[in-house]
Amino acid sequence: MALDLEGVLSPEIWISVAEQTKIDELRLTTRDVADYDELMRHRLKILDERDIKLSDIQNVIASLPLLDGAREFLDELRAFCQVIILSDTFNDFAKPIMKKLGYPTLFCHDLEIKNDKIIGYKLRQKNQKQYAVEAFKSLNFNVFAAGDSYNDIAMLKAADRACLFRAPDSVKKEFPQFKPVEEYGELMAEISSARF
Amino acid sequence: MALDLEGVLSPEIWISVAEQTKIDELRLTTRDVADYDELMRHRLKILDERDIKLSDIQNVIASLPLLDGAREFLDELRAFCQVIILSDTFNDFAKPIMKKLGYPTLFCHDLEIKNDKIIGYKLRQKNQKQYAVEAFKSLNFNVFAAGDSYNDIAMLKAADRACLFRAPDSVKKEFPQFKPVEEYGELMAEISSARF
Repeated sequence: MALDLEGVLSPEIWISVAEQTKIDELRLTTRDVADYDELMRHRLKILDERDIKLSDIQNVIASLPLLDGAREFLDELRAFCQVIILSDTFNDFAKPIMKKLGYPTLFCHDLEIKNDKIIGYKLRQKNQKQYAVEAFKSLNFNVFAAGDSYNDIAMLKAADRACLFRAPDSVKKEFPQFKPVEEYGELMAEISSARF
Repeated sequence: MALDLEGVLSPEIWISVAEQTKIDELRLTTRDVADYDELMRHRLKILDERDIKLSDIQNVIASLPLLDGAREFLDELRAFCQVIILSDTFNDFAKPIMKKLGYPTLFCHDLEIKNDKIIGYKLRQKNQKQYAVEAFKSLNFNVFAAGDSYNDIAMLKAADRACLFRAPDSVKKEFPQFKPVEEYGELMAEISSARF
């Protein structure tokens, strides 16, 4: 099972940071800007201009609750299949969220930090979600994938079965081949029915 | 981090089953019967003859304690890196052990079950430990591997860095290129020093 993180188990990190710092420009996500590198360069520029440090962002993230029911959903899922969370966030951001989720396995990226300042980021791999799903399939796993936005689409396409979870209408409309579900119960029913 | 299960975090499952059922023939390992398929068919034949069901074996496995300190070691490890357990056991056997370990991600194999009877087994992939490590490397992860026996060697060779953990002297002697460690603290120190 390959699962997106933000919007699926946790709130969108950058939107939460935007809200708490009251910087509207940080609200943009992969839902709004399809080019991830463009989006990240934009974000780091704003952080630099406003002198927002890594620890400021980490404090915001640590204060975020999981989505309601996320832990219970993930616990139930982990008891019957193998789950890997595929996220385009960064290890330094994700850590407090992973702790709240009981340390599921997470494949994401790394930040470059200097004196608590985010000076850059290092993608472990472009299109890592898609490549991870393809790697699991090469290991003879049947892969079910779920995500909510543009950066999940290649992963959903690569998987044996896939759902959109609480996706915006634009994404649902553009990718009608993926069944849209809104609640964990529905997603669990889809995954269970696919038990390969 | 790619980690073997039996002998590293939990006791050897078949040896424990042999002890609790007092069936010495179940003690045979790949060291006694070179061909894994022959060994598994032999084991299944004995289970059939003695009318030992899946649930009987699951009860034995559920009664096994983890190795002393295993959960604490794994918790500490999962808090700072991604861990995948690579084992040649079967999902139906491993489940109670995974529960005790807090559901880390496990890549292993499947049994074929009919009315609580083990009628066969299905390797997800031959040499799955090696292929999994190679897949993680293809996803740009640096991989540290640890295991204790012959079926771990290809995984250790494929990894960026590797240790033998509580390996028999024969294995240590045959593969001197892998540092042998005996305690979790030593293994943790090796992993920490390798932080890529």
